[in-house]
Amino acid sequence: MSEHHRPVPRVGMVGGGQLARMTHQAGIALGVDFRVLAGSPSDSAARVCGDVHLGDDRGRDDLLAFAKSCDVLTFDHEHVPEPVLREIEEAGARVRPSRAALEHAQDKLRMRTRAEELGVPCPRWRMVTALGQIEAFAGETGWPVVLKAARGGYDGKGVWVAADSAQAREVLERAAENGVQLLAEERVSFRRELAVQVARSPYGQLAVYPVVETVQRDGICREVIAPAPGLDDEKATAAQQLAIDLAHALNVAGVLAVELFETDRGVVVNELAMRPHNSGHWTMDGARTSQFEQHLRAVLDLPLGSPRSTAPYTVMANVLGGEDPAVYERYIHVMAKDPEAKVHFYGKQVRPGRKIGHVNVAGEDPADLLARARDAASYLRGDQG
Amino acid sequence: MSEHHRPVPRVGMVGGGQLARMTHQAGIALGVDFRVLAGSPSDSAARVCGDVHLGDDRGRDDLLAFAKSCDVLTFDHEHVPEPVLREIEEAGARVRPSRAALEHAQDKLRMRTRAEELGVPCPRWRMVTALGQIEAFAGETGWPVVLKAARGGYDGKGVWVAADSAQAREVLERAAENGVQLLAEERVSFRRELAVQVARSPYGQLAVYPVVETVQRDGICREVIAPAPGLDDEKATAAQQLAIDLAHALNVAGVLAVELFETDRGVVVNELAMRPHNSGHWTMDGARTSQFEQHLRAVLDLPLGSPRSTAPYTVMANVLGGEDPAVYERYIHVMAKDPEAKVHFYGKQVRPGRKIGHVNVAGEDPADLLARARDAASYLRGDQG
Repeated sequence: MSEHHRPVPRVGMVGGGQLARMTHQAGIALGVDFRVLAGSPSDSAARVCGDVHLGDDRGRDDLLAFAKSCDVLTFDHEHVPEPVLREIEEAGARVRPSRAALEHAQDKLRMRTRAEELGVPCPRWRMVTALGQIEAFAGETGWPVVLKAARGGYDGKGVWVAADSAQAREVLERAAENGVQLLAEERVSFRRELAVQVARSPYGQLAVYPVVETVQRDGICREVIAPAPGLDDEKATAAQQLAIDLAHALNVAGVLAVELFETDRGVVVNELAMRPHNSGHWTMDGARTSQFEQHLRAVLDLPLGSPRSTAPYTVMANVLGGEDPAVYERYIHVMAKDPEAKVHFYGKQVRPGRKIGHVNVAGEDPADLLARARDAASYLRGDQG
Repeated sequence: MSEHHRPVPRVGMVGGGQLARMTHQAGIALGVDFRVLAGSPSDSAARVCGDVHLGDDRGRDDLLAFAKSCDVLTFDHEHVPEPVLREIEEAGARVRPSRAALEHAQDKLRMRTRAEELGVPCPRWRMVTALGQIEAFAGETGWPVVLKAARGGYDGKGVWVAADSAQAREVLERAAENGVQLLAEERVSFRRELAVQVARSPYGQLAVYPVVETVQRDGICREVIAPAPGLDDEKATAAQQLAIDLAHALNVAGVLAVELFETDRGVVVNELAMRPHNSGHWTMDGARTSQFEQHLRAVLDLPLGSPRSTAPYTVMANVLGGEDPAVYERYIHVMAKDPEAKVHFYGKQVRPGRKIGHVNVAGEDPADLLARARDAASYLRGDQG
């Protein structure tokens, strides 16, 4: 075989964010060709990847050309329009996850409908187009009501919490102006939020990760504790089985993240993501196979890697941008204080509240690990020192 | 700070081999800018790195220009000529390790001389320029005698074993023709080969990894077992101390690998390398901080990461090229058979005997891990199936 032959497949990832960046990192070890479609050379993945195609990662022409240049197409985000996905598939490209699978992560209405058919526990929900429908729904569930855009959203948001009829009207009117279809969902009274990740290959092999606890503040994931402390084995297994069943039923290829609420009556499904996900960043330093390697193995239809944990607990804390962008100057303190902390930076411009990196800490005691991960992330943000 | 400012340092690595490739991988997490000087776009590191400068990685002009474009210069190999290193340092570049440190990895004569001054145990050795000197040396140590080129070598080799005077004459004559200075060394009767890696920062911080056993066949490292099985604590600590002392005395910045022979009278130093080293590839899946991340932290003068093992044992096996270059087609078997095996490929063209990747397996039982790592590597080479 000459050097001009390409003996390994080329995976093309749509989108140049941090998920593509970390997938590239995993692809280096596998020795596969990894190409990214990024909007700008300063995108997180474009800054480190050897094979960057600049273009519109939601635009038909760029996507079609990009897909043609790759053996397998996969995604850093879920924003590729469905008609474009259909066209790419019809042109013969291997799209993983497929359009038919991906629509359940793109469209909350389809996801809820399908989950209900499958008997998967969900919050009570209803498609709503008029205020009267929301009010009737609130009559059953009580206020506040969670209103979600089925696809996309407006004003940079896709979820709103309406405390009363007046707030609901406002959301509804803006949604109508923006051509956005809404769902009403009950505001679930939960003990905590959980997540499960499962990888599935086209061959049908599955590998499921431990159930994790995710901690959100102001609607942003802040910490993940793997495994979820104090979750009994039976509940954990049930949550894993739910994710497995969903991955099979939706014919997922790649990694599926299932976000869950833990309630008094068991878990209910909040959201789905069909790509590497923030709730799985802990696997980079806490599992035998990271979610990024696993995603690549799955979309390439290679046998999956062991999802086994390599430490009793691993805690991840997201690093959000603060006021002071000089993150690197704070490395010295964080690294000196905790030589076990694993810092992962995304090479993104610092903006307040933006996810710019994460820290993993693995060990025995989840409370200690959480304190250390939080401390490192908060120092890197610039809250201390 | 605008997007046009570069808030993180740029590390430049000289040489586009697999060590640069894996250092790039570690640099992605640290979020530092990593630039590589490679001879060809098909070089192992050049295939995956986002910032590749093509040029002669041993040539004065290209090296000087490259050094100027980076905040810190470091190395994938030890072949940059000393006068060029001197010129780069005189131009004000931060060279880590420095020319003065690096010469002990480049020149075996200087290394032996310095090690002797430091009281570090070495094989008996002598600088030799005439057959009579070799014969006299063999009179003390017995035949065979190991002849080594102080720098470089000829016919692609730098070490020869002379069984008798006639063979020694042949090596000596070819060395003289090629302007190569020779050392004679006793052939050490060893139980096994060991290695220790230590990282040192310019600030003077040190982090030492466990002592490992290295298994060579036909002069090529084939397996590494971390830690070296059955090595008692006292001997292990002494070997680590020896590496620490050498790193301090030679003023190393970066990772230093010390290759050792374990003999009945203790350990003796075989070779030094001042860069990430094959004996440390196990750290990618078996230590909290990989040697590649550690090297970057050291040359950037950041606090070092924990060198702690994350499993009782980790075994690495090199994958050598075989007759059949279709390595990727064999992934499916290796990954299906052992979901815990970590495959690392270098993206290099397959040539018989060439190191094209490695496999790490971590766990409890070194014999089991060794069998599995060997099996995976041998399958990937194409010896089975």
